[in-house]
Amino acid sequence: MSQYKIAVIVGSLRKDSLNRKLADALAKLAPPEFSFHKVKIDDLPLYNQDDDSNQAVSVKRLRDDIAKAQGLLFATPEYNRSIPGVLKNAIDHASRPYGQSVWPGKPAGIVGVSVGVMGTAMAQQHLRNILSHLDVPTLSQPEAFIHAKDGLFDENGNIGSGSKEFFQKWMDRYVGWVKKNAA
Amino acid sequence: MSQYKIAVIVGSLRKDSLNRKLADALAKLAPPEFSFHKVKIDDLPLYNQDDDSNQAVSVKRLRDDIAKAQGLLFATPEYNRSIPGVLKNAIDHASRPYGQSVWPGKPAGIVGVSVGVMGTAMAQQHLRNILSHLDVPTLSQPEAFIHAKDGLFDENGNIGSGSKEFFQKWMDRYVGWVKKNAA
Amino acid sequence: MSQYKIAVIVGSLRKDSLNRKLADALAKLAPPEFSFHKVKIDDLPLYNQDDDSNQAVSVKRLRDDIAKAQGLLFATPEYNRSIPGVLKNAIDHASRPYGQSVWPGKPAGIVGVSVGVMGTAMAQQHLRNILSHLDVPTLSQPEAFIHAKDGLFDENGNIGSGSKEFFQKWMDRYVGWVKKNAA
Amino acid sequence: MSQYKIAVIVGSLRKDSLNRKLADALAKLAPPEFSFHKVKIDDLPLYNQDDDSNQAVSVKRLRDDIAKAQGLLFATPEYNRSIPGVLKNAIDHASRPYGQSVWPGKPAGIVGVSVGVMGTAMAQQHLRNILSHLDVPTLSQPEAFIHAKDGLFDENGNIGSGSKEFFQKWMDRYVGWVKKNAA
Repeated sequence: MSQYKIAVIVGSLRKDSLNRKLADALAKLAPPEFSFHKVKIDDLPLYNQDDDSNQAVSVKRLRDDIAKAQGLLFATPEYNRSIPGVLKNAIDHASRPYGQSVWPGKPAGIVGVSVGVMGTAMAQQHLRNILSHLDVPTLSQPEAFIHAKDGLFDENGNIGSGSKEFFQKWMDRYVGWVKKNAA
Repeated sequence: MSQYKIAVIVGSLRKDSLNRKLADALAKLAPPEFSFHKVKIDDLPLYNQDDDSNQAVSVKRLRDDIAKAQGLLFATPEYNRSIPGVLKNAIDHASRPYGQSVWPGKPAGIVGVSVGVMGTAMAQQHLRNILSHLDVPTLSQPEAFIHAKDGLFDENGNIGSGSKEFFQKWMDRYVGWVKKNAA
Repeated sequence: MSQYKIAVIVGSLRKDSLNRKLADALAKLAPPEFSFHKVKIDDLPLYNQDDDSNQAVSVKRLRDDIAKAQGLLFATPEYNRSIPGVLKNAIDHASRPYGQSVWPGKPAGIVGVSVGVMGTAMAQQHLRNILSHLDVPTLSQPEAFIHAKDGLFDENGNIGSGSKEFFQKWMDRYVGWVKKNAA
Repeated sequence: MSQYKIAVIVGSLRKDSLNRKLADALAKLAPPEFSFHKVKIDDLPLYNQDDDSNQAVSVKRLRDDIAKAQGLLFATPEYNRSIPGVLKNAIDHASRPYGQSVWPGKPAGIVGVSVGVMGTAMAQQHLRNILSHLDVPTLSQPEAFIHAKDGLFDENGNIGSGSKEFFQKWMDRYVGWVKKNAA
C-alpha cells in the first residue's frame, strides 16, 4: 500500500505539456510506497478575496487534494521569467482564507522543462520564494532546469537513457526529503 | 485633449481593493494631458497555450486596451511574496502568441499598498523581473511600497494630506518617465 | 556538552551592528546543547578564482569554521535591496574551489534587522535563492523581517519583552530544524 | 571627440575573465562617440559603514569614475545564483554614504557570459533588482545571457561571426538607451 501520496501540480494547461510529461515520467522512477496524483487546476476561478468565505467547489477540491497529500511535486513552465499565472492562481487559492492555508509543512520538489536552454530556471527562483513563505520545505538540489532536447523522453514516455541517471538521482533525493519532512 | 492614455492594471479583484483606490487617487494627481483607464482582467480565462490561435474575446479586448495605451500603471497586492496569479494571468495573455506581445516599449510605473508594513515590496521585485523581460521600461524610483495606515486616503478618496507630497513627487517622475519613453 | 555548533555569519562589519546584536540576543534563547560561534569575515580577500588553488589563510579558516559546524545562522542587513557584498564574498569563498563547497547539507536560519520597516526582507529573498543553490536546507517560517524599534533589545542586550515571544518561537522552530537536518 | 563615457564594471577579478573579454569585444561595436573605461574594483576594501565618513582612496576613485560617466556597462559572472560578492561590494561602496550615491540616473546595460548554459541569467535578475533601487535606468532587451561556446570570440578578441548580429543589435539598442537617458 502507498504510504506517501504526492500531489503533482503542473503549471501548464496545454494538452501536450512537456511539464506534464516530465511529471509522469518522473513518477515512474519512484519507489512503490510513493503514489503521484495530478491536481486539477484548469477549472479554478480567478482568485478573488471576496469569495474567501464562499469558496467554489473546485477550490475546495484543490484544497482537499493538497491537504491529504504527504508531499508535493511542482512541474512548471516559465512564462515571462516567472511562473504561469495559472499556477500562481492555484497556489493563491489553496493558501486562503487567511490562517487556513493547506500548504504548510508539505515537503516539495520542483522541476521544469522548456524548449529553451534556461529550463525554467527563473520561474523556479520565484517559486522558491513563494514556497518558502508558504512554509513548504523544498528540496534544494539537484536543480532540475531541463532543456527539452531530443531523447529526453523515449517512445513510451519514460525518461530517455541519456537523462536517466540525473533524474534517478533527483528522485532518490526527493524521496529522502519527503520521508524526512512529511508530517 | 488627452495625449497620454494610461492603461491601469490592478492586481486585485476584490470590490474594496486598496490597490484600486490607490490607482484612482493617484490618477487625480496627474496633469490634464494624462488619462487613466482601468483594464478589465476579471473575466479572462486561465491562460492555455492551446488557445493562442483562438483567443477569447476578453483576451483580445485586453490586448487592444494595452496596445492603444501610451503607458502603464500597475497597482498590485502581494500574495504569498509574489504578484497575484490573477495579475500574472493577464500579463501572460497579453504577451501571447509568441512574437505578438503587446507589452514592449510601453513605459510603466508600479505601486502597491497592503495592510502589512511590507507594502507589497516582494511582489514588486518579481513584477520588475517580469516587466524587464517584456521590454517594458519601468520607473525605478521612488519605490512605492505603501503601508495602508489611517489617513492614506481622505473621505473623498483622494490621497490624504500626510502622503500627498510623496505621491505628487511619484506622479511627477512617472509623468516625465512616460513622456520620455512613450513611442 | 554542546552537541550542535552553530556558525553565525553576520553580514555587517560595523562595530555597533544591529544584526550582530540580534544574533547575540537570539543565541541566548537556545537550549544548552546549542552553542553559537561567530565566523570572522572582515579579513577575507576579495574572491578571485585565480586563487582557488592557493587560498588565503583567512579563507581556509572560514572554510574550517563552516565545515565543523552542525548548523548556520545568518543575520543580514539589506544593502540596496540585496545582501551586502561582504556577506556574498564570504559565501563565494566557502563555496570554492568547484566541487569543494563546505555549505551543502548544513541546516540554516535567516534573520535580519534594519532601521527601516522592510526589515531586510528583499535581501533575505536573494539569500534564500543563493542558499538553495548551495544545498543548504533553510528554515522557511517564521520569517524574521525585523524593524529595529525602541525596546527590541533590553539594557543587557537581551531580546526585549515585547519581542520575546516571537523570537522564542523562531528559536524553537530553528532548533527543531537543525536537529532534523543536521548530518 | 567622445561624448559618452561609459564606466565598465566587470564582476570577475580573474585574469582571463570571460566577462572582461566580452566587455572589451562589445566596446568595439559601439559608435565613435562612445568610449569605454573599465572601473577598478579589485583594490577596494570590504565595505564597512563605520568608514563612511572616511572613505579609502580606492573608494573615492571608484565614486569619481562612476560620477563622471554618462552610462554604465555591467559584465557579470554568476556565483551561486547571484552576482559575485566582489561586484556587490563595489556597488555598495559607490552608493554610500547615505544620500550621496553616485549611481542615480546613469543609464545601464547588463551582459554576462558563463561556461554553463544559464549565461548568468539568475545573477542578472538580482542585479536588476539592485539597479532599480539605485535609480539606474537599465536596458531591458535584448537579454544577454551568453553561453561561452567555441567561436564566441575570434582570434583577435572580437565577437565571432556567429554572434555578431546579436551583439550589434544589443549595442545599437544600448546606444539609443544611453542617449535617451543620459543626464
